[in-house]
Amino acid sequence: ARGAALVAAGKDLGETSEARAFRLGVPALDAFPAGLWARLVARRWRGGSVYLGEGHAAGDPALRGAIADYVANARGVRCSSRQVFVVNGTQHAIDLISRVLLDRDDDVWVEDPGYLHVRIALRDAGARLIPVPVDSEGLDVAAGERSSPRARLACVTPSHQFPLGAVMSAPRRLALLSWARRAKAWVLEDDYDSEFRYSGRPLPCLQGLDIERRAPGDEPRVLYVGTFSKTLAPGFRLGYLILPDGLVDIFRDARAALDRFAPTLEQGVLADFIGEGHYARHVRRVRALYAERQETLLTAAMSELSELLTLAPDAAGLHLVGWLRPGVREEHAVRAAEAEGVEVSPLSRYRLTPAEAPALGGLLLNYAGFNDRAIRTGVRALRRALGRAK
Amino acid sequence: ARGAALVAAGKDLGETSEARAFRLGVPALDAFPAGLWARLVARRWRGGSVYLGEGHAAGDPALRGAIADYVANARGVRCSSRQVFVVNGTQHAIDLISRVLLDRDDDVWVEDPGYLHVRIALRDAGARLIPVPVDSEGLDVAAGERSSPRARLACVTPSHQFPLGAVMSAPRRLALLSWARRAKAWVLEDDYDSEFRYSGRPLPCLQGLDIERRAPGDEPRVLYVGTFSKTLAPGFRLGYLILPDGLVDIFRDARAALDRFAPTLEQGVLADFIGEGHYARHVRRVRALYAERQETLLTAAMSELSELLTLAPDAAGLHLVGWLRPGVREEHAVRAAEAEGVEVSPLSRYRLTPAEAPALGGLLLNYAGFNDRAIRTGVRALRRALGRAK
Repeated sequence: ARGAALVAAGKDLGETSEARAFRLGVPALDAFPAGLWARLVARRWRGGSVYLGEGHAAGDPALRGAIADYVANARGVRCSSRQVFVVNGTQHAIDLISRVLLDRDDDVWVEDPGYLHVRIALRDAGARLIPVPVDSEGLDVAAGERSSPRARLACVTPSHQFPLGAVMSAPRRLALLSWARRAKAWVLEDDYDSEFRYSGRPLPCLQGLDIERRAPGDEPRVLYVGTFSKTLAPGFRLGYLILPDGLVDIFRDARAALDRFAPTLEQGVLADFIGEGHYARHVRRVRALYAERQETLLTAAMSELSELLTLAPDAAGLHLVGWLRPGVREEHAVRAAEAEGVEVSPLSRYRLTPAEAPALGGLLLNYAGFNDRAIRTGVRALRRALGRAK
Repeated sequence: ARGAALVAAGKDLGETSEARAFRLGVPALDAFPAGLWARLVARRWRGGSVYLGEGHAAGDPALRGAIADYVANARGVRCSSRQVFVVNGTQHAIDLISRVLLDRDDDVWVEDPGYLHVRIALRDAGARLIPVPVDSEGLDVAAGERSSPRARLACVTPSHQFPLGAVMSAPRRLALLSWARRAKAWVLEDDYDSEFRYSGRPLPCLQGLDIERRAPGDEPRVLYVGTFSKTLAPGFRLGYLILPDGLVDIFRDARAALDRFAPTLEQGVLADFIGEGHYARHVRRVRALYAERQETLLTAAMSELSELLTLAPDAAGLHLVGWLRPGVREEHAVRAAEAEGVEVSPLSRYRLTPAEAPALGGLLLNYAGFNDRAIRTGVRALRRALGRAK
């Protein structure tokens, strides 16, 4: 049954327990500017500017304006505030896209390996998932075209491919947009951790490139999704889509029909937080913190895990991939780590097609959400675990 | 296409404009205890007890406990806090139920006339809507059994049928539960405005009756849904389901897969607000206010609309039904009202099957969200409008 597949997909996601190193998706909650936020909240209540009534299905207008300005500066997004559509996080965005734009049996390209959660909503909408391999230049567009030239949607993480970390090269970006125009396909650009690049200049986003390179008569093809879960906190359940202008009313009406609108209170405070420059400052601060934490993890791993797990630095993101020794199986490593109180995710969980035979096993380690002490303790526990894992 | 139907369903719901008398769904925002709420928010921030991390997919544990206690006292719900499942409002609850419990082409009983929004999610899930007539005793269970004895779900508003206001009689309640047990069908009890009963004792809810009257071996059949949109404000996007114990894990996993969890911040504050008794006091205060506002509407209508619109008092709810003179068509009345700046909803919008020929037209007037002055002004404008409508 339809519901059963959904429930099975959420099986490991529904239980929450205290986050331990190196659980994925946990940002630096200890860096959240609670005092400042509390003052902005109090100011709104005091000033009588808390809006409690029916909200706009597309989001708080002030928040949409603040986001439009921010993403133009920070990510090279080219949009008006009208094109900003507030959602309850990335998963909600993908679910909404699936329900609005996809029909049963539509083909959808997904990165392989790739983000797990994106597949759930696509499957629930009855889409056919077409795994497209990734390499050091990101999504292999030519392989996608061979597998399914008429796909309706391609889901990509061009800034920092999840989970392997490649940045999509310029030629691949142009090839992807060119295919999307020919196929009249949509491109979902998930820019989930784009704020966290520690060296080099980030490439501007696909969305902006699509707008710049359009020939007259070309329709925009990119839906851009961003989240505040990694930069602020997941508890807010706030993210945003940047939609092609022609989709804005359609998404608004669909959301109004489904769950109406996002909670109005925090949207207003977040609009103030971004609009007054606090958000950009906070992101800069957290970026420096994450760079330090990656350094801490790399240093600890070098002295403790040298024979057991190979970690290479990454110029971006919130996690690193650790490669196991030849012959060590991921599930054994994960289980041994769990027994030592460490949470690591096996790379194979993110694959749609099994890796070819002699491939090394990989573990994903989120460092961003844990302080230096937790990282070092985690690494020592991991050494004990991997010393035993076969 | 699937998405197009959804978009069409949300067509009139996506645009928001300032609420004017007598728009449905608008509660008394002017009665919201903003000062008290702001103090509770500030206390949480100050005390460091704001939780920003990954929330529980079933809801904040403290909030679930507070709701369980409240609904046991106020509505005769029989449940543990484990059975309380926090949702983003009634529409979200219905969408979740549709996606988890229904398969394509499942039959679902819906009240006719009945709540509009319930149908959207059901249709999107591919369910077949079976209109079941309502009369002065609520849903005509026997008619439902004749139309579709094997339906999978029945959606009902037993406390105060929307929009006509009947209270489901005790025999009908027992007949509905008895059918549900035989058919192994679910009953969705939408208790959307149950807090607002102005005279007489409310009947305890179906959910409690189901638990009390179970024979050994009977499974509970009722899913109860409540909302804070009418008692506090729609801007919170918070409501709750009371689920049979066997469905709790299933719903939790499905929600974790779809949009993860409800925003954590306001859930914590709401838990304090309910747990410390503020909510019950607030509901009592608002109940008295709504009773006054209904009185204001009735008095104004008696002197201004006597020949034009027949309004009968209602012992419960947030709106009244006004009956038009014979021969006056609803759409003309609605358009004339709109030209005078008054918002009324035609009863026919809520019908699945057209009313039989000589039936009177009806208009729905929400009084709860408007102060005395707005109600009186609205009634005068309505007199001008209806004086012209044919």
